Amino acid sequence: MGIGSCQHTIHRHQHHHSWDRDIPPALVVADGATVEFETTDASGGQLDPSSIAADLAGVDFGRVNPVSGPVFVEGTGPGDVLEVEILELAMTGWGWTAHFPGFGLLADQFPEPWLKHWELTPGSSTAPFADGIDVPVAPFPGTIGLAPPTPGPHSTVPPRPWGGNLDTRHLTAGTKLYLPVGVEGALFSVGDTHAAQGDGEVCGTAIESRMGIALRFRVHRHWGLRFPAFETFGAAPGDRATSGSFVTTGVGPDLMVAARDAISGMIDHLGATARLDPPEAYALCSVAVDLRIHEVVDQPNWVVGAWLPRGIVSR
Amino acid sequence: MGIGSCQHTIHRHQHHHSWDRDIPPALVVADGATVEFETTDASGGQLDPSSIAADLAGVDFGRVNPVSGPVFVEGTGPGDVLEVEILELAMTGWGWTAHFPGFGLLADQFPEPWLKHWELTPGSSTAPFADGIDVPVAPFPGTIGLAPPTPGPHSTVPPRPWGGNLDTRHLTAGTKLYLPVGVEGALFSVGDTHAAQGDGEVCGTAIESRMGIALRFRVHRHWGLRFPAFETFGAAPGDRATSGSFVTTGVGPDLMVAARDAISGMIDHLGATARLDPPEAYALCSVAVDLRIHEVVDQPNWVVGAWLPRGIVSR
Repeated sequence: MGIGSCQHTIHRHQHHHSWDRDIPPALVVADGATVEFETTDASGGQLDPSSIAADLAGVDFGRVNPVSGPVFVEGTGPGDVLEVEILELAMTGWGWTAHFPGFGLLADQFPEPWLKHWELTPGSSTAPFADGIDVPVAPFPGTIGLAPPTPGPHSTVPPRPWGGNLDTRHLTAGTKLYLPVGVEGALFSVGDTHAAQGDGEVCGTAIESRMGIALRFRVHRHWGLRFPAFETFGAAPGDRATSGSFVTTGVGPDLMVAARDAISGMIDHLGATARLDPPEAYALCSVAVDLRIHEVVDQPNWVVGAWLPRGIVSR
Repeated sequence: MGIGSCQHTIHRHQHHHSWDRDIPPALVVADGATVEFETTDASGGQLDPSSIAADLAGVDFGRVNPVSGPVFVEGTGPGDVLEVEILELAMTGWGWTAHFPGFGLLADQFPEPWLKHWELTPGSSTAPFADGIDVPVAPFPGTIGLAPPTPGPHSTVPPRPWGGNLDTRHLTAGTKLYLPVGVEGALFSVGDTHAAQGDGEVCGTAIESRMGIALRFRVHRHWGLRFPAFETFGAAPGDRATSGSFVTTGVGPDLMVAARDAISGMIDHLGATARLDPPEAYALCSVAVDLRIHEVVDQPNWVVGAWLPRGIVSR
């Protein structure tokens, strides 16, 4: 079951720009249904293969992160959990990564707009970043969630307990996501598809690329889940560092500062070893470096690590 | 090269209870030397196989986390980096995990002392936690570091830019740790050995167990490293979830609160699926569940995941 064999299709024009329980469903499905979604990229089509960095200033943030849907799932409501099985993602050929001024973990250090285009070859396990640097491709939906119970429009940028812009790179084909249901029918939407991302998405964007995505919905009644949960069923792509990693850390009393220090250390490392300039290194961190919390108990200092899989850089 | 074949030995009695640049070296070695250390467990011998939870109240925190050393490495000083190659760890047969009141990520929710003894079989890849629950064993030193440049005694509990109580479970045999040097001779010490731990060490203790550890030192001159870095050279044990994971998340504007919510969700999950009571589940999280930062850019809400490798629980 996957792209082309689902029971229903949500087309690209059936999208919306905020989470809102009062947006009429684009589709009503039964428990167990399979649905294929066409997504738009996170710019909502405002960037294209001819865009340059200067175009980022003209991007209307009211139109970013559109999501396709919503889908009303019959027989579910508040207190339930909607299982979303991710069946398949079909990549298209073009993607982009950008530094938007004011957005990202190190926004203060990277005030200039920066844009990179990616060539994504369907079926290829990597995408070329630079000579001797290839990023593992593992497509997933960055934004996947349900309408919040509070009436009115809610931005699609922050994630919430009902999901949304989770930007969790492990939600690849074969995984199952469990979302707390906030409203009758759940009102599911998906978008912001990514071809690759590291844990953290530190520069604020991944390899942004529109895709097709096939999903199956199942309803679990009366499961007291407060936040999204998910299941993976194998080592890849969550554990892609099979030949080891180089890890920089940050040590201190604030996890956010420690994450910033770990990424700054990795940018230095990539400059010294792979001869990347800081904006390039920052982007590579966003698409391929993973943040882990190594300890969070040795008062008053915690340790955050930034993990670069060894196989990515061969130059 | 490993236990029994090193050039030097630091014995168990050669330990100290604070980092202090003025503690005389127990040993002076050349660049490239190999040293075997006997470590004491994190209680400094205050707990033993006959201890019960009520004994935790009597533990003198002035004597916890002793480290064996210090070792003066010739030819290094401030601005350099000391490479510490972890050659081998030799486990002994007994370990412990405890909830100390007031200590740990969920200290407010777990006010009661709690103590578990572990039987560690040399050569076994797992340690039994309960019927149908086996924890992968991957020994490493919890505390490994150098004297800070500031004079006077410094607690061995928090880690610092020169290392210390990093509690980073990936520092297993075969990895290399890089520590910024703060003083002449680096003044290296190690202790607090752990048989297993999750990323986070959320209850505040791992499988605490004294061990032998063999290390090799190398000096790197003039490397502007601000915080510890390390290298791993294979998938295991950093990527132990080869058959997949169940992941709970926390979503919100504070990484610490998100980490707490993710672990609370995992404690609920382990209660519902593995029938563990909350203190047991909290301890299992500390020794086997990994915290990752999935996104830290979608203002104002971040996502932290708590990862339970699927193979650990079979009941």
